[in-house]
Amino acid sequence: MSDVAETGGRRARGGGGATRRAERTAVSFETAKFIQRNIPNFEILNEEALQIIEYNAETVLEEIGVNFVENEAALVRWREAGADVRGERVHIPRGLARKLCATAPKTFTQYARNPERSVEVGGRNLVLAPVYGPPFVRDLEGGRRYATIDDFQKFVKLGYMSKWLHHSGGTVCEPTDVPVNKRHLDMLRAHMVLSDKPYMGSVTEPSRAADSVEMSKLLFGADFVDQNTVMTSLININSPMTFDGIMMGALEVYASNNQASIVSPFIVGGAMAPVTVAGTLTQVLAEILAGVSYSQLVRPGSPVIAGAFVTSIDMNSGAPTFGTPEAAHITYGTGQLVRRLGLPYRSAGSFCGSKLPDAQAAYETANSLNMGLLAGVNFMLHACGWLEGGLVSSFEKFVMDADQLGTLHHLAQGVMMDTNGQAMDAIREVGPGGHYLGCEHTQANFKTAFWRSDLLDYKPFETWAEEGARDTQTLAAERVKKMLGDYVAPALDEGIRESIDDYVARKKASMPDAFM
Amino acid sequence: MSDVAETGGRRARGGGGATRRAERTAVSFETAKFIQRNIPNFEILNEEALQIIEYNAETVLEEIGVNFVENEAALVRWREAGADVRGERVHIPRGLARKLCATAPKTFTQYARNPERSVEVGGRNLVLAPVYGPPFVRDLEGGRRYATIDDFQKFVKLGYMSKWLHHSGGTVCEPTDVPVNKRHLDMLRAHMVLSDKPYMGSVTEPSRAADSVEMSKLLFGADFVDQNTVMTSLININSPMTFDGIMMGALEVYASNNQASIVSPFIVGGAMAPVTVAGTLTQVLAEILAGVSYSQLVRPGSPVIAGAFVTSIDMNSGAPTFGTPEAAHITYGTGQLVRRLGLPYRSAGSFCGSKLPDAQAAYETANSLNMGLLAGVNFMLHACGWLEGGLVSSFEKFVMDADQLGTLHHLAQGVMMDTNGQAMDAIREVGPGGHYLGCEHTQANFKTAFWRSDLLDYKPFETWAEEGARDTQTLAAERVKKMLGDYVAPALDEGIRESIDDYVARKKASMPDAFM
Repeated sequence: MSDVAETGGRRARGGGGATRRAERTAVSFETAKFIQRNIPNFEILNEEALQIIEYNAETVLEEIGVNFVENEAALVRWREAGADVRGERVHIPRGLARKLCATAPKTFTQYARNPERSVEVGGRNLVLAPVYGPPFVRDLEGGRRYATIDDFQKFVKLGYMSKWLHHSGGTVCEPTDVPVNKRHLDMLRAHMVLSDKPYMGSVTEPSRAADSVEMSKLLFGADFVDQNTVMTSLININSPMTFDGIMMGALEVYASNNQASIVSPFIVGGAMAPVTVAGTLTQVLAEILAGVSYSQLVRPGSPVIAGAFVTSIDMNSGAPTFGTPEAAHITYGTGQLVRRLGLPYRSAGSFCGSKLPDAQAAYETANSLNMGLLAGVNFMLHACGWLEGGLVSSFEKFVMDADQLGTLHHLAQGVMMDTNGQAMDAIREVGPGGHYLGCEHTQANFKTAFWRSDLLDYKPFETWAEEGARDTQTLAAERVKKMLGDYVAPALDEGIRESIDDYVARKKASMPDAFM
Repeated sequence: MSDVAETGGRRARGGGGATRRAERTAVSFETAKFIQRNIPNFEILNEEALQIIEYNAETVLEEIGVNFVENEAALVRWREAGADVRGERVHIPRGLARKLCATAPKTFTQYARNPERSVEVGGRNLVLAPVYGPPFVRDLEGGRRYATIDDFQKFVKLGYMSKWLHHSGGTVCEPTDVPVNKRHLDMLRAHMVLSDKPYMGSVTEPSRAADSVEMSKLLFGADFVDQNTVMTSLININSPMTFDGIMMGALEVYASNNQASIVSPFIVGGAMAPVTVAGTLTQVLAEILAGVSYSQLVRPGSPVIAGAFVTSIDMNSGAPTFGTPEAAHITYGTGQLVRRLGLPYRSAGSFCGSKLPDAQAAYETANSLNMGLLAGVNFMLHACGWLEGGLVSSFEKFVMDADQLGTLHHLAQGVMMDTNGQAMDAIREVGPGGHYLGCEHTQANFKTAFWRSDLLDYKPFETWAEEGARDTQTLAAERVKKMLGDYVAPALDEGIRESIDDYVARKKASMPDAFM
């Protein structure tokens, strides 16, 4: 990628340092503020059900226990905290995990390098981040193929330019053309340089988590990172009830540096958890209690998000299924349980099993996005771009979903009940049989009254047909092309950028390539 | 259509009357019971907001009033009830409409000719009925074209065979090849003969409503129709606040025969109602209060559903938009207001503005269907098949949406909290690091645990690619073809069918064709 693209496509005429030059030439794309809900959450479980699940989850922790694998330090920490540790199995006495969770903050700020794009995680807020993890990408022209670092950079650019996306995410796709032990460096660099939204760190090795912290210090300054949270990273639990050494090692790096982790059971219902909703909720809560507690054992007060990645399974084929009613039940229920723990909550996303960004993909995704909003989710990973059960990051679906995220912002606003909202004067003015289009109240409000898609087709049939009868995927492909053509990088101090590039180059030179 | 198709494609070998012969040869397709919610409703308005809107709605009725147009009898009824009638404007004193609404039943049974398919409208139930009204149809092969009676019959057959659809609906498309003044006869005949689910009557003229009642008497018996509700028909209000003579004439026929009407404002926000949500809710409530009251003035205790058809408008083009956040706010809010009136509620549907059954259509539809379930809707018209802002009934989208309606059934079940649901034995059996697929609890529950689409693709990528890489529309087109090929009519007494055919023939012969 060229310098020109990254500093705004234009050169400053002269004077001032690198920073001022960059600031003067950069174009900024509009980003909405993270969602602050003004609507209630949907509560599917009653008090009795919640208490049963809470009781059962503590029974699981005490009686069955959880495994902390290949992690002697974790077993020591648990023993010192009062758990009954037998081999790698940690039995947590009733009440202990809940007590340990109490030191985790209810909300925290994740800072972005552009302070306007910092996010508040927790409370009634919802922060939206893009798809995470797929080894493949798909677009209309090129079809399905292994992802590369070039694809990765494109997704970061699209995320930066997406109005309703608050977060740049992490592994927006796996850059499979970069060695496994070096790709985290290129990924982090892309988020830091090509976007100014908050981002996630690497979790595939504790040393890569440490690289993420070091690179963040170059971007934000070491003191700032010591005192503030600038990364939120994804720590999956190996359900059922297993915490592996590598993931926990990454969590330890982040927690000890006061950086946030999402502690998240990864569950395909019927495989990694019981086939019933209440059973899954019990296991999810037990896993969250153990994982969040562990983050607090590492460093009390370190920021953490309680997560739940949950899908159901197609019992005919064994395939995971998405946007299903059972996943919705679990997502709603987990939200209630997590709120009772006073923790921020991560769940839902643009989940779908479809191979194409077609109607199936959209039904399943819309089911999940709507559920995520009403379930009280605070951090929604995978909020756009997910395809084919998470195997594929889709360029078209990225912009399709990112557009739909606008509906969540408007839904969350709730109903304005002031005099203008009540509109009694308009009703009086228009009267029976009249028409509101021309009335004063409509004129005064129409620009902000209704959410409007920037992508979908609202044209009359004849116009639409004349313009080529394009379906949503085709419209989206055109939008992707236009956005990538219009992309201009956010301003960044040249010195900072050089220090990041140096770090990446040095680290890469320090080790042989590994592809496994 | 041939006799063979309608009686099951096979002839009985002999013996017995027409009825027994039909019964023996008919195949019955599985239909789910109407939804009985075991989950809460989503309540977007707080008590204060509800009271403000209720107060304002009564202000509208008293101070501004509503028009009953070309309907002298209605004005007389209103005057006698205590309203202040000036010309065609009816001013309804505060409290009167609410009092009149109190005689409407909270719930009622709409009988189907197959008693297993009768539905309970109101309470915590949700009855799903197909698309209503489009002059065009679309399918993958034939594209978009004017609808015919042949199309109409195909949609009735698809509705009859759709597991998650409880109701055969009404004008599933406009059979434009049949004269305007005769098509209601063919439409009713199709619902009566080709399906055994409940149906809607004609509302385009009071005389056609009367035909609907007469034909229903042939199907159910005159006494039965006198004493029971066998039709639910759609009475739109000309918003703002205008009740026209033809629609009210049809309502009068139905109410006086104890048949149900859906009294429904038809609103494109910003055009027929204020551009703000609270203003629209106020007008919708005023219109519902006036319309439902009028049904009770005609016959106290007659069954009625309070409806709200609400979309927003694209202020750039003036086009109606669907699946939008503002429509959701209004649908949630109207649900709360209608429940406080103790009336059954009609709203939501498979709404979309897209020209194709593509991702746009599915996003918008899923937004609306999910909202409809959580808003406490009791009768969902347009629950499948709607395309292009209601101009088109889509064959593919009909089966796509009808499949998605299964998710609403499962969502509504809520979370089972019995011992089996809690699954503690399964969690104990499997333990940390184990796998639930083989465990006893999974084996015992897997068949019913998860909703499974009958249409969408859950296959691995390679299988899907080998099978032609079909998108949802293609899968749906194949399903439509298969269903219509497999269709077998429900059993019907030959004598009854002949009497219906005679009625249709006689009525058609009694008047010249009209095409306007």
